[in-house]
Amino acid sequence: MAPPSPSPRAETPDATLHHPDMRCFQLVDIVRRNNRFAPATYAPLVVDQRTVGLVAKERVSALQRFPDVFSEVTPDRIQLHPRLAHEAARTTAMMDVARALLATGDIGEKWKHEDYGAKDAADQVVFRVDRSAAAFFGITQCGCHLNGYVRHGPRPDDVSVWMGLRHASRALWPGKWDSIVGGGLPLDISPWDNMLKEASEEAKFAANDISHLMHSVGVISYVNSEKEGLKHNTMFVFDACLPSSLVPRSDGDEVERFELWPIRKALALVEASPESFKPDICLLLIDFGLRHGILTPDNTAAYTSLVHSLRATPPF
Amino acid sequence: MAPPSPSPRAETPDATLHHPDMRCFQLVDIVRRNNRFAPATYAPLVVDQRTVGLVAKERVSALQRFPDVFSEVTPDRIQLHPRLAHEAARTTAMMDVARALLATGDIGEKWKHEDYGAKDAADQVVFRVDRSAAAFFGITQCGCHLNGYVRHGPRPDDVSVWMGLRHASRALWPGKWDSIVGGGLPLDISPWDNMLKEASEEAKFAANDISHLMHSVGVISYVNSEKEGLKHNTMFVFDACLPSSLVPRSDGDEVERFELWPIRKALALVEASPESFKPDICLLLIDFGLRHGILTPDNTAAYTSLVHSLRATPPF
Repeated sequence: MAPPSPSPRAETPDATLHHPDMRCFQLVDIVRRNNRFAPATYAPLVVDQRTVGLVAKERVSALQRFPDVFSEVTPDRIQLHPRLAHEAARTTAMMDVARALLATGDIGEKWKHEDYGAKDAADQVVFRVDRSAAAFFGITQCGCHLNGYVRHGPRPDDVSVWMGLRHASRALWPGKWDSIVGGGLPLDISPWDNMLKEASEEAKFAANDISHLMHSVGVISYVNSEKEGLKHNTMFVFDACLPSSLVPRSDGDEVERFELWPIRKALALVEASPESFKPDICLLLIDFGLRHGILTPDNTAAYTSLVHSLRATPPF
Repeated sequence: MAPPSPSPRAETPDATLHHPDMRCFQLVDIVRRNNRFAPATYAPLVVDQRTVGLVAKERVSALQRFPDVFSEVTPDRIQLHPRLAHEAARTTAMMDVARALLATGDIGEKWKHEDYGAKDAADQVVFRVDRSAAAFFGITQCGCHLNGYVRHGPRPDDVSVWMGLRHASRALWPGKWDSIVGGGLPLDISPWDNMLKEASEEAKFAANDISHLMHSVGVISYVNSEKEGLKHNTMFVFDACLPSSLVPRSDGDEVERFELWPIRKALALVEASPESFKPDICLLLIDFGLRHGILTPDNTAAYTSLVHSLRATPPF
């Protein structure tokens, strides 16, 4: 549902702010590019009668080589073998399957040495598997992102955001713009602790410097068919209003350089050229604009749909 | 999906903040109380093949008295007469129906003199009807709410929120706690302008004082079966960080008095006694806690579900 049509209005001191040049934004379409998912093309991965993942039907046959692990492998259903009755046994078996699929090239990534959890609808972890296999099995993936921004004045758009340019040598999304700090969230570390750890690694922010500036602001989620499999992602989002003296430093390895962009420049580039960004960063910037009063019901087309589109319904 | 389980963590300067005593919160249940909706108990209201509302099946028979307005009235479908081919004709007819239903007591409210729009899924207004009939017909209802808060320090929970006690004489929700300013959003006024107007009426805030403090922060939506009919509500949410010198004033009519509550007191009362509030104010306070880093993935049960639950999928 969209907000009411714009109407003639009284001039207020902030009229220019609330009637800026952003009515043309069709940001919903950009969010939807990250939410392309056709359930009928996936087979549920079932453990003890609970769906915990979704495997693309065209990839299902790769699992027929593991009859000790899967008691049923069809394009309609993949069933973990009932003899694997506990998390530890399932985890051992699924880690072995993941290594085998990486070796045969059925999974095209590198082993990440990070445990992700396959969770049922009640959030119980039923097995662990390396992050490299998470998309193949379509299990829930979690991550953290930080919006590091600098405020120049009191108006909502008197804000600049730090952006990081991903190094050209990176395997995923080389040369694309990214948040100042972000990363996957393995099991056994909390979102807050993970955010501090990533901030230290990626931007060289000491925990003492950043922890009193940073706070949790919500969640963005999306469900997207990608070449690696199903990305069913939940991003825990944090904001930090940084003093101009606190500048992120790159080691020139993961991030080529950081730049501080006026928020309107960042949002204009999201609209004009979303492919300049790692895809989920478009969602992160739109969410920032919505929460900070830059994208408003008065200046943004399909405002309510836009807010809804940032939090996709879980696929199981 | 919930965040990862809490785990042992390094001590940081803010450890006490991020590991407070709120793990027990089951706020999802409180949000769900505002989202009780069984689609099978409603008949779609169809205009020109588009569903624009939902009428409780038990109320459908009241519409059989208007054969010139509805070409079909059954518990499965209510069809606006095809001779009503344009918005103006439909509006005239539906306003007449609403007046008749108020006169017979089928709608138990007073005429509000505010036009609400029945909108299709593409947000086109197909007819207008008085706000008093919106729930009976289950059309989209929009409103605005302001979080007026005062910051005492830099930590996320160093914040107090202004609450208004609804006057005991009010027809709806007498004696319940409400936001500092809120109200329905008629057609022909923008959310921003409406928020300024309500702030002037309800809290005696001059537009010049409040407009540079107030900004849009998103949307909360819910779909709830209530005694008046279906509340399919979208709340446009605004925040204003108020200086301690800017105090809301009540005229003693709509609001009995305003009180400034520490945010943790407000959230604790939401958990312990949600019936102390006008129901949607529980959602407003939870959303505030989530956006401001008070309810976090590290301290709140079912965090991701909680975020999702605040933005119900539209029912048509």
